[in-house]
Amino acid sequence: MVKEITAQALDTESFINEKVAEIRSAVGKGTAINALSGGVDSSVVTMLGHRALGDRLKTVLVENGLMRAGEVEQVTGFFRALDVPVQVADARNEFFAALRGLTDPETKREAITQTFYRQVFGRLVKESGAQHLLQGTILTDIDETVAGIKRQHNVFEQLGIDPEEAFGYKILEPLIQLRKEGVRKLGEALGLPDELFGRIPFPGPGLAARVIGEVTPERVEAVRRATEVVEAKLSGFGAFQYLAILHEDRVTGIREGRREFGQQIEVRCWDSVDARTATPTRVPFDLLEQLGREIVAAVPGVVSVTYNIACKPPSTIEAI
Amino acid sequence: MVKEITAQALDTESFINEKVAEIRSAVGKGTAINALSGGVDSSVVTMLGHRALGDRLKTVLVENGLMRAGEVEQVTGFFRALDVPVQVADARNEFFAALRGLTDPETKREAITQTFYRQVFGRLVKESGAQHLLQGTILTDIDETVAGIKRQHNVFEQLGIDPEEAFGYKILEPLIQLRKEGVRKLGEALGLPDELFGRIPFPGPGLAARVIGEVTPERVEAVRRATEVVEAKLSGFGAFQYLAILHEDRVTGIREGRREFGQQIEVRCWDSVDARTATPTRVPFDLLEQLGREIVAAVPGVVSVTYNIACKPPSTIEAI
Repeated sequence: MVKEITAQALDTESFINEKVAEIRSAVGKGTAINALSGGVDSSVVTMLGHRALGDRLKTVLVENGLMRAGEVEQVTGFFRALDVPVQVADARNEFFAALRGLTDPETKREAITQTFYRQVFGRLVKESGAQHLLQGTILTDIDETVAGIKRQHNVFEQLGIDPEEAFGYKILEPLIQLRKEGVRKLGEALGLPDELFGRIPFPGPGLAARVIGEVTPERVEAVRRATEVVEAKLSGFGAFQYLAILHEDRVTGIREGRREFGQQIEVRCWDSVDARTATPTRVPFDLLEQLGREIVAAVPGVVSVTYNIACKPPSTIEAI
Repeated sequence: MVKEITAQALDTESFINEKVAEIRSAVGKGTAINALSGGVDSSVVTMLGHRALGDRLKTVLVENGLMRAGEVEQVTGFFRALDVPVQVADARNEFFAALRGLTDPETKREAITQTFYRQVFGRLVKESGAQHLLQGTILTDIDETVAGIKRQHNVFEQLGIDPEEAFGYKILEPLIQLRKEGVRKLGEALGLPDELFGRIPFPGPGLAARVIGEVTPERVEAVRRATEVVEAKLSGFGAFQYLAILHEDRVTGIREGRREFGQQIEVRCWDSVDARTATPTRVPFDLLEQLGREIVAAVPGVVSVTYNIACKPPSTIEAI
């Protein structure tokens, strides 16, 4: 049983000192590795790890082909500015090969998880010679996995993997007692920029979680373009999250007087405090109509755009 | 080449007299039959035919299982009030049998058309002994078929059917020179109630046109319930058309803390003058959110509801 530290109770300086000491003690004279996704949790772990180990922590950003437009450059830029080196590993082909032909959401998620841990990151760890892996697992990840709401990709037990046996490394999870708010407070104390915290939540499987049906480079590119429009247009509403989803269903459209059986993009924008319940953001209709126009203009083959009007529950924030 | 009569140019009394004379002359001492869908065109043809032939016109409403809640009762009620007898032919099993396993929109539409003309109505005509069939084809049907936008199910040529050869009857199309506005003016002159004209446009294939993927009795019932909510909630906006669509894509939902892979309903509500271009009606957000709540409550298995925000073109009014 993990003992929670609330954001209010969190004394960042003593927490940092304690975790830095623990990481140093665990890693000893060896080296460690961690994967940076650009999310708050993995970013905070990166900072904490570098504070503890300096160059003996190798931070890798795996380019899985499922990230948003400009995201790799943006994330590496944040850390370059803090003098923390990040290595980008291009594994796009491996992920798309693993996803080929898959349509079931759980199977797709599983393929991404397996490709990441067993294949790509496993190889990177082996090549690095590191004996320790730093992970950004937080308390909420455990709760949601237990509740069966989702399978957190960063909880190893879920995979039935003993990392030490399988890959020869030990896992360190310095954030396991915290929730989002505490992680954010810690990240600020570690010097991470506001911009990084301002980024809206983004799921582990990346844009694959925004594609209903098969995840191909073309379909990811379609939802990437739609996401770019949605994020640019909806960033000003203080919404909890906003996203674009590429549907598999085809709907009739018409271009230049001719019938075209095309694709549909669904836009969701949520007002929420803690993601447990959420309501659709009341975006002005002018903007919704503009969103519709820009998405059909920006994404080839898209003839229809919808906006979510259901609440969570029974909806969920993401579609798959 | 059919010569158009505009609504403005239409002199209803002389048009009625002319068409009544033409129908009488064509049918002679024989009998005629017509299919009433409840749409304006077939309703006007029914009135015109009865004016010409009285009891020698048999009017049949084919219950194909694809109509809206209460629609059969409503339509037959309109005509009962006008002393025009309408026979209801229950062909639900035949239509659902023909639709079983079909997912392609064109194939589904074709199955409905073929089941209607070759099977159900063909049999009814034969049983009736009628030599003439009255049809409510209007000029717009021909235009849209020529443009390839849709295949009007009531244009026989499209089917490669010579009705006289195939079924032994001749087709009469007394409304072929008119467009919607003219037909409506004619219907008013023939005594049809305002309520009938006030009904929003409804596609030939009925609720099958509102189901993406396979059309089963269960899936039609789902979209029927959603349609009932949508029509009740959105009737007050003076919108051109409003509809519910059952998607085939599954999306994640959550009920009682447990994940549920559920269905999605899309709502469309259009402002339009002539259906050639259309924009989404700016329904207040209170009502949209209420729509979302009522649909997930009314339709088992539905966890998500969206509202269309794209314009026509490149969208179309209906989805399939």
